[in-house]
Amino acid sequence: MKDDGLTRRRLLAAGGGGAIGLAIGGGAGFALGHDDPPADQPAESPGANVVPVWGPHQAGIADAPQDRLVFAAFDVTTDSQDVLADVLRQWSDAIVKMTAGDPVGPVAGHPLAPPADTGEAMGLPAAGLTVTVGFGPSLFRAGRLGLEKRRPSLLHPLGPLPGEELLPALSNGDLCVQACANDPQVAFHAIRNLARIGRGVVLLRWTQLGFGRAAATSPDQQTPRNLMGFKDGTNNIDASDQAKMKRFVWVGDDEPQAWLRGGSYLVTRRIRMRIESWDRANLDDQQVTIGRFKVNGAPLSGGQEHTPLRLSAKGPDGEPAIPDNAHVRLAAPEVNDDIEILRRGYNYTDGTDPASGQLDAGLFFIAFQRDPAQFVALQNRLGASDALNEYILHTSSALFAVPPGFRRGGFVGEGLFA
Amino acid sequence: MKDDGLTRRRLLAAGGGGAIGLAIGGGAGFALGHDDPPADQPAESPGANVVPVWGPHQAGIADAPQDRLVFAAFDVTTDSQDVLADVLRQWSDAIVKMTAGDPVGPVAGHPLAPPADTGEAMGLPAAGLTVTVGFGPSLFRAGRLGLEKRRPSLLHPLGPLPGEELLPALSNGDLCVQACANDPQVAFHAIRNLARIGRGVVLLRWTQLGFGRAAATSPDQQTPRNLMGFKDGTNNIDASDQAKMKRFVWVGDDEPQAWLRGGSYLVTRRIRMRIESWDRANLDDQQVTIGRFKVNGAPLSGGQEHTPLRLSAKGPDGEPAIPDNAHVRLAAPEVNDDIEILRRGYNYTDGTDPASGQLDAGLFFIAFQRDPAQFVALQNRLGASDALNEYILHTSSALFAVPPGFRRGGFVGEGLFA
Repeated sequence: MKDDGLTRRRLLAAGGGGAIGLAIGGGAGFALGHDDPPADQPAESPGANVVPVWGPHQAGIADAPQDRLVFAAFDVTTDSQDVLADVLRQWSDAIVKMTAGDPVGPVAGHPLAPPADTGEAMGLPAAGLTVTVGFGPSLFRAGRLGLEKRRPSLLHPLGPLPGEELLPALSNGDLCVQACANDPQVAFHAIRNLARIGRGVVLLRWTQLGFGRAAATSPDQQTPRNLMGFKDGTNNIDASDQAKMKRFVWVGDDEPQAWLRGGSYLVTRRIRMRIESWDRANLDDQQVTIGRFKVNGAPLSGGQEHTPLRLSAKGPDGEPAIPDNAHVRLAAPEVNDDIEILRRGYNYTDGTDPASGQLDAGLFFIAFQRDPAQFVALQNRLGASDALNEYILHTSSALFAVPPGFRRGGFVGEGLFA
Repeated sequence: MKDDGLTRRRLLAAGGGGAIGLAIGGGAGFALGHDDPPADQPAESPGANVVPVWGPHQAGIADAPQDRLVFAAFDVTTDSQDVLADVLRQWSDAIVKMTAGDPVGPVAGHPLAPPADTGEAMGLPAAGLTVTVGFGPSLFRAGRLGLEKRRPSLLHPLGPLPGEELLPALSNGDLCVQACANDPQVAFHAIRNLARIGRGVVLLRWTQLGFGRAAATSPDQQTPRNLMGFKDGTNNIDASDQAKMKRFVWVGDDEPQAWLRGGSYLVTRRIRMRIESWDRANLDDQQVTIGRFKVNGAPLSGGQEHTPLRLSAKGPDGEPAIPDNAHVRLAAPEVNDDIEILRRGYNYTDGTDPASGQLDAGLFFIAFQRDPAQFVALQNRLGASDALNEYILHTSSALFAVPPGFRRGGFVGEGLFA
């Protein structure tokens, strides 16, 4: 894993005084500093944490969400399985290194070669980086790479859904990479270096930045707020509940394509919020739209944030305490055949819409599930009746099959090419 | 400063168990929790720090740069000085509160009124927030607000400069607000609430997100790296050097418009990097383009990062160790009549350019100076000869006069309306 002499943490340890560099041009001589502190020294701060990269599942799904996201979709330009597999092998090597806080190769290698790492993460800790790779339905189309017989049984483009006006340039893709970290520069560095490694074989299609994770995935995490100012993700799946993860998130042995077992299906939806309309809505309107109190996140049916919804509770006027079209009611497992999904979304803001002068901001929704139909059923219900629809619009959509984790010496998605 | 009972830190202190909320609709009753811990308790973590808001200069200039930026430019739609002054007064009240980590007003006030704060920063610390306001040249145009006689002597639109292809929709503006914080959600919350407060009087023109500050402003800060992977800002002005700040940054008593004395001029330039070309350039090319070693930031003329450039040093081949067209040589005070500027830029990435499939990423350059000519002279020199021009393009530009700080009971820019 540490197969080059120069790690980001070692650079940190060398500090400003280390004579690190290579003699080039007409400058004075510099020697590459191999002062070699122990490679596996413990991280010095919570921000430096290293998430395990090996395992039965890819990182970035069941781990506690980090604070920052860079998500990228790629188009594949080769028609050779071998060429694509080779990129995935190189990506996996890079993912292993970057997850450990190391560069993907020497920043200062041969003076007449481009640096093997772009360098902007030097001096930064691992920052909890996770990198998660997925395959889109288009990758399996007949006449491309010859993968049509290996298409996962449930991997078909999401049909039109209510509540969407999709921008094709920001939707779909042959591959996806989800990079999450507690430092945006670390997440950006990951996407940028994978794009660089894949040059000539894969082409960036779209990217999305996110911040302030909008869903907790364990009861220990304080529920963060979305850009409507409400706590978001209170009733999310607890990712440490392995029974629930097995039931709702991980692809099981019933999947005919063995290579996907232990993986998941990833749905992304860029949900633009009509911020200005929302900010003009009164508190009561906002709370009945969501079905929760704004400040403490408790259901309108009473209790505290984590009190279960009492969907049958009535108010003094005899009407349901949580209105029939409130978002939390329509999204509740109780009214959705007990369906749950694992949400891992992030808030986003992409500047100002030049047409309206309004902020282009909202939620970049990410969900993992063992069957895309879990999401589709929910969105059909929400898109049809949700009071929230007055304030949101889905502007991009994508679906990916996320292969299981990989082992030392292997690479992500290798089963697809077996 | 603490004129409402509900602060973000108090909400934190109340934790998940606090019965905070308002009885509305048919739900169970909730009482607003006034548990009132001491209002000025010390911040619990470095991320919770509060930057002083009062003083002779606005915050966000001489303070140590935070990690995240949201920058906004606004157009003014009123022609009334009084109406604009009233917005600035409301903005100043909001800035004082948000800088302290408080909401701008009750998130849960009257159920039939829109919340006075949008709420997404509830539970987050102050995060070192600073908010800095400036006035663009267009605000002083004759026939608008009648401010033409109060135009600062040096506030004129930047003329065409070499190396730019400007996007008008992302350039200029009547007002600007620079929000910096160690949490992007806190910075976003500030811009969004100021836009909300100003509705009907000011209109968002453009916004820009930034991360991973690209310049240190004191020798104690480790020099961060820009997206070319190089340390950026090694030779920046040390903002604690008051003689230098007076000489290069603060508008002095020679300014005929007394209201601007103690302020500064703010230049922004969105500098897109041709990331893919840069990543294909070899290490030697990169280093001679910048004039420094990539890994440790030392000048090519030798030494360590903070060793002064030896512009006359020659290499073994008799050529200058730092080439004639290297960026650091052309930007060096020694060859620019000793001119310096205070840089405070941030890295940015705004997704993918749909035309090319390349990352739209680079540096959102921010500089403060007592005379815009300081920047113009530098950019004329850099734009004409800098080896870096092969890899960058300025795509937006703006200039603002930044009024001095304000006092308790006053408001930012009040001198303009005196």
